Amino acid sequence: MDIATLIGLGGAITLLVFGIGPTNLPAFIDIPSMLITGGGTVCGVFSSFPLSRIFNIIGVVKNAFFSKQLTPAQTIKQLVEFAEQARREGILALEARAQEIQDDFLKKGIQLAVDGTEPELIKDILSTEITFIERRHGDGAKLFEQAGALAPAFGMLGTLVGLVLMLGNMSDPDSIGPNMAVALITTFYGSIIANVFCIPLSEKLKGYSAAEMMIKELMLEGIMSLQSGDNPRIVEQKLTAFIEPGLRAQAMKERG
Amino acid sequence: MDIATLIGLGGAITLLVFGIGPTNLPAFIDIPSMLITGGGTVCGVFSSFPLSRIFNIIGVVKNAFFSKQLTPAQTIKQLVEFAEQARREGILALEARAQEIQDDFLKKGIQLAVDGTEPELIKDILSTEITFIERRHGDGAKLFEQAGALAPAFGMLGTLVGLVLMLGNMSDPDSIGPNMAVALITTFYGSIIANVFCIPLSEKLKGYSAAEMMIKELMLEGIMSLQSGDNPRIVEQKLTAFIEPGLRAQAMKERG
Amino acid sequence: MDIATLIGLGGAITLLVFGIGPTNLPAFIDIPSMLITGGGTVCGVFSSFPLSRIFNIIGVVKNAFFSKQLTPAQTIKQLVEFAEQARREGILALEARAQEIQDDFLKKGIQLAVDGTEPELIKDILSTEITFIERRHGDGAKLFEQAGALAPAFGMLGTLVGLVLMLGNMSDPDSIGPNMAVALITTFYGSIIANVFCIPLSEKLKGYSAAEMMIKELMLEGIMSLQSGDNPRIVEQKLTAFIEPGLRAQAMKERG
Amino acid sequence: MDIATLIGLGGAITLLVFGIGPTNLPAFIDIPSMLITGGGTVCGVFSSFPLSRIFNIIGVVKNAFFSKQLTPAQTIKQLVEFAEQARREGILALEARAQEIQDDFLKKGIQLAVDGTEPELIKDILSTEITFIERRHGDGAKLFEQAGALAPAFGMLGTLVGLVLMLGNMSDPDSIGPNMAVALITTFYGSIIANVFCIPLSEKLKGYSAAEMMIKELMLEGIMSLQSGDNPRIVEQKLTAFIEPGLRAQAMKERG
Amino acid sequence: MDIATLIGLGGAITLLVFGIGPTNLPAFIDIPSMLITGGGTVCGVFSSFPLSRIFNIIGVVKNAFFSKQLTPAQTIKQLVEFAEQARREGILALEARAQEIQDDFLKKGIQLAVDGTEPELIKDILSTEITFIERRHGDGAKLFEQAGALAPAFGMLGTLVGLVLMLGNMSDPDSIGPNMAVALITTFYGSIIANVFCIPLSEKLKGYSAAEMMIKELMLEGIMSLQSGDNPRIVEQKLTAFIEPGLRAQAMKERG
Repeated sequence: MDIATLIGLGGAITLLVFGIGPTNLPAFIDIPSMLITGGGTVCGVFSSFPLSRIFNIIGVVKNAFFSKQLTPAQTIKQLVEFAEQARREGILALEARAQEIQDDFLKKGIQLAVDGTEPELIKDILSTEITFIERRHGDGAKLFEQAGALAPAFGMLGTLVGLVLMLGNMSDPDSIGPNMAVALITTFYGSIIANVFCIPLSEKLKGYSAAEMMIKELMLEGIMSLQSGDNPRIVEQKLTAFIEPGLRAQAMKERG
Repeated sequence: MDIATLIGLGGAITLLVFGIGPTNLPAFIDIPSMLITGGGTVCGVFSSFPLSRIFNIIGVVKNAFFSKQLTPAQTIKQLVEFAEQARREGILALEARAQEIQDDFLKKGIQLAVDGTEPELIKDILSTEITFIERRHGDGAKLFEQAGALAPAFGMLGTLVGLVLMLGNMSDPDSIGPNMAVALITTFYGSIIANVFCIPLSEKLKGYSAAEMMIKELMLEGIMSLQSGDNPRIVEQKLTAFIEPGLRAQAMKERG
Repeated sequence: MDIATLIGLGGAITLLVFGIGPTNLPAFIDIPSMLITGGGTVCGVFSSFPLSRIFNIIGVVKNAFFSKQLTPAQTIKQLVEFAEQARREGILALEARAQEIQDDFLKKGIQLAVDGTEPELIKDILSTEITFIERRHGDGAKLFEQAGALAPAFGMLGTLVGLVLMLGNMSDPDSIGPNMAVALITTFYGSIIANVFCIPLSEKLKGYSAAEMMIKELMLEGIMSLQSGDNPRIVEQKLTAFIEPGLRAQAMKERG
Repeated sequence: MDIATLIGLGGAITLLVFGIGPTNLPAFIDIPSMLITGGGTVCGVFSSFPLSRIFNIIGVVKNAFFSKQLTPAQTIKQLVEFAEQARREGILALEARAQEIQDDFLKKGIQLAVDGTEPELIKDILSTEITFIERRHGDGAKLFEQAGALAPAFGMLGTLVGLVLMLGNMSDPDSIGPNMAVALITTFYGSIIANVFCIPLSEKLKGYSAAEMMIKELMLEGIMSLQSGDNPRIVEQKLTAFIEPGLRAQAMKERG
Repeated sequence: MDIATLIGLGGAITLLVFGIGPTNLPAFIDIPSMLITGGGTVCGVFSSFPLSRIFNIIGVVKNAFFSKQLTPAQTIKQLVEFAEQARREGILALEARAQEIQDDFLKKGIQLAVDGTEPELIKDILSTEITFIERRHGDGAKLFEQAGALAPAFGMLGTLVGLVLMLGNMSDPDSIGPNMAVALITTFYGSIIANVFCIPLSEKLKGYSAAEMMIKELMLEGIMSLQSGDNPRIVEQKLTAFIEPGLRAQAMKERG
């Protein structure tokens, strides 16, 4: 998991515990309330998405948070090396290299170029692939968004249950306060699930997705350029334009 | 109905009953409140959509939840078989096969190809059909969305009615609590209708629609490819690019 | 007015009266509250749109709810008949027919075709017309949407007025309840105006508009096809693709 | 200012005064509350937009509400006259006419046509101009939208200040009501600023902008048509298609 | 920092202090509440964006608020001078001039033109660069937007914590008011963070970005025009069309 997420989640929880005060913590831990709010949110997610997609999404999310992506600079470096080799030894020379590539998308693209597939078809196939990767990522972000919308609703449902029960039986005035405190706990949980977890993580997944999409577009551009026999310098120039100026110096350095 | 929806709806209701406590359940069952909230939502839906479309949508929804769709892998398999037969025996040989096809869209497309309709016209006709199927699905999702927006509003209306009645007649202080509890029940119902049912099911319908659209686009692509006499290997390669990498292995396996 | 709207509006009002209880009804009728909420909403609409457009929109709305549109099936039938006659007797033979057409859009299109106007220009003129009809319909839906957004706001304004007056003068504790009940009435009205009337009717207008747009697009497609001398069978095939499969059988039946 | 806006604003304020009751009016006038809510909203607008743009927008808004625009019918009439003169006496004859044109956009377009500028360049220049006019109008609407979003927030901030002060010092129970009444005044002001002024006027500016854009597009279309030497009848036919059928009869009448 | 932002932020804070009353100010300063609301918002931002991007964004924001941009008039003046020199002495003569250019984007564009890069490639490279600058700016605005959405949520979380603690222990009725006052402070902070700072600054960043994008597009257009050997008068005319009529007189004046 990236450091920013660790800091963000850890920090928010620490701040809440500190705000509550460790000695008061037990008042905020209520298993039935957790079940209603958290469980309800999970149930809502199950009602919202097909089962296969939910499991699919878990993979996407795990991938996004834990797998190492190539940086744009590394990607450009690799593509320029391929272009150089293709220019020196012909594009068929990349066949062996392609086997060592770890990124499935890049491997497939190089393979298609080596096989002599028509440029239009390569572009079609890889673009479709990019579209699907993007859609899958979008599904992940949408799942968290939906959970972030449902959690406060289930929190409010729990509070309504508590209020109705309390209001229906107010014989003991002293119990009103504590009962209402318990009723509010689900609203509290719902807000935490949404604002500490789901809404920020949905945004983060979108950021991961955008970063990965840029890498994939770099690869697509590089493969097309390489296949049309472009001079490696041109390949580099084209690809470098794709990345932020701040990263270009780094890309150049990597290229040595 | 798919398993995820069953789990989601069943789980949410179970959690709520558990949260309320079975013995307190009667306090949460109030027929007039149900009529105002549920009936009001249904009335709002009637005011929002033409009658024909409402019935139409019921069919779409039933279809979405209960009918079996071909998987992408099955669809590709079938289309590649058609391409092989067309290449071996000529496209007219598909005429007999077309009669056995269950999917109306695919049957119509093959029929048009067999009839020698111009590719442009086939594409036009099938694309229009896809647009309409998509629009009908969109209508279904929109109906649930509208219901999900109206339900809490009618719930709040019911609560306002209860509050006004209660506030206008506060001679008996002991009745304030119970009266207010009853007033809140419609808000409770409105939130359940929206967050347990309408909002998740609207999302699920969108997912079903996206899945079916992908199948239809696969079919359109396959029919166009097959009609232009593409090699079955090319047909397969093109279509496989349309589906998620994770499903490709499965598609290949199905192809044997 | 279509039946669904009648059911929806009538049902919602009946349910509310039933929820309130007929004997309590007078407590919910307060002329000043109606003036503030309803009048405020109308004033907000006047501030939001140009005068000419507001009157314009009244016409559009009346039209949408009360005028009879051709069904897609009837439209196709008529266009195919025109195509047959144009093929038999030449396109000029449609001149006399055009005079009997009730739909202004169709009449204009046929007239343009008869006059020998260039296809590109016909398409431009009719497309512009479609754009403007769509925009006018959109304006109608937007007016109701705006009213639906302003009504609860004016309802809340009325409640704030009531609350401030009540809180400023709490010498008689017994009057607090009733005063607050009265204060809530404007919120109640605002919610009814929005959720029973404006929001559903805005959606319904969008539906009417989409249906009418489809008819107009059918007509445009039919006129272009007819003018280019297409075989009536082709005209029919093209147009039928425009409508929902479920309506096609009906269209065929109408064609006899 | 157009009549609808006058009716809308005047009516809403009258209704509120009536709802409050003239004798109670002083309770709703609180200078510090006005400063916090109104001033806060203005400050928020300053934080939201560059200074130059804020002054710019004031001009746009003044223009939109007070300047007289040509109607579509007048615009078409003028363009057709120009087309007639250009056809009779050559396009250079328009040079003198161009000087009398009041609308800067039209004058510039005619001047460019007279100067023999290439059609493509004329179109580019005028389209860019339209884009910028539209953007400026959009900025005006956005400013009111932002103010309409910030006003209730500052109103709530004021109420929170009042509540915190009141709750922190509840030694005199009799002062609770009046203090809370005062606290609510800022919420009341925030809602008025937003719902009586900003939100409707933002919508009205959008409507003005759409109307002016249509006039500009008419002019662009007319200038291009005129420059290509189109027959004045064709110019008229093309331009008339741009306006609503209801306005066409009027346009024809103007043409006499 | 631009004057409008200074006025906006300073004014809003002054108004709030004035509304609270300087003597009551201590009641609104609560370090733990600040930590929960402000710290929680910062944590939420860390959970929402990758670390690299957060630091990146700080630079973008600092740049937007403090760096001096060329005005459109200055940009046009400079580009027309370049066009004149290129026409007089050939495009290579710009090589020396390019070294003195401060704007990296313009320098790169001129350099590419001098190097004889193909127009299509120059356009591609510079457009990509514009896209990335825009995306970075968009990220800055999005960060503030996200913070503006999270701050009120964390404020409400803090208030919920306070309410639950207070309700759970109501043995001393006199402490209810002050406790509730403290509980509301986080909501107060959340609203200030969002409405005084984040939401307006997000909008302002969007405005800065739009202004800078216009300058960059001007530069791109000017470089393309200059490279194709356009007459400096044409360059000026094309570029002037890009800016608001109100700024044109100024641009002309700058040109002398």
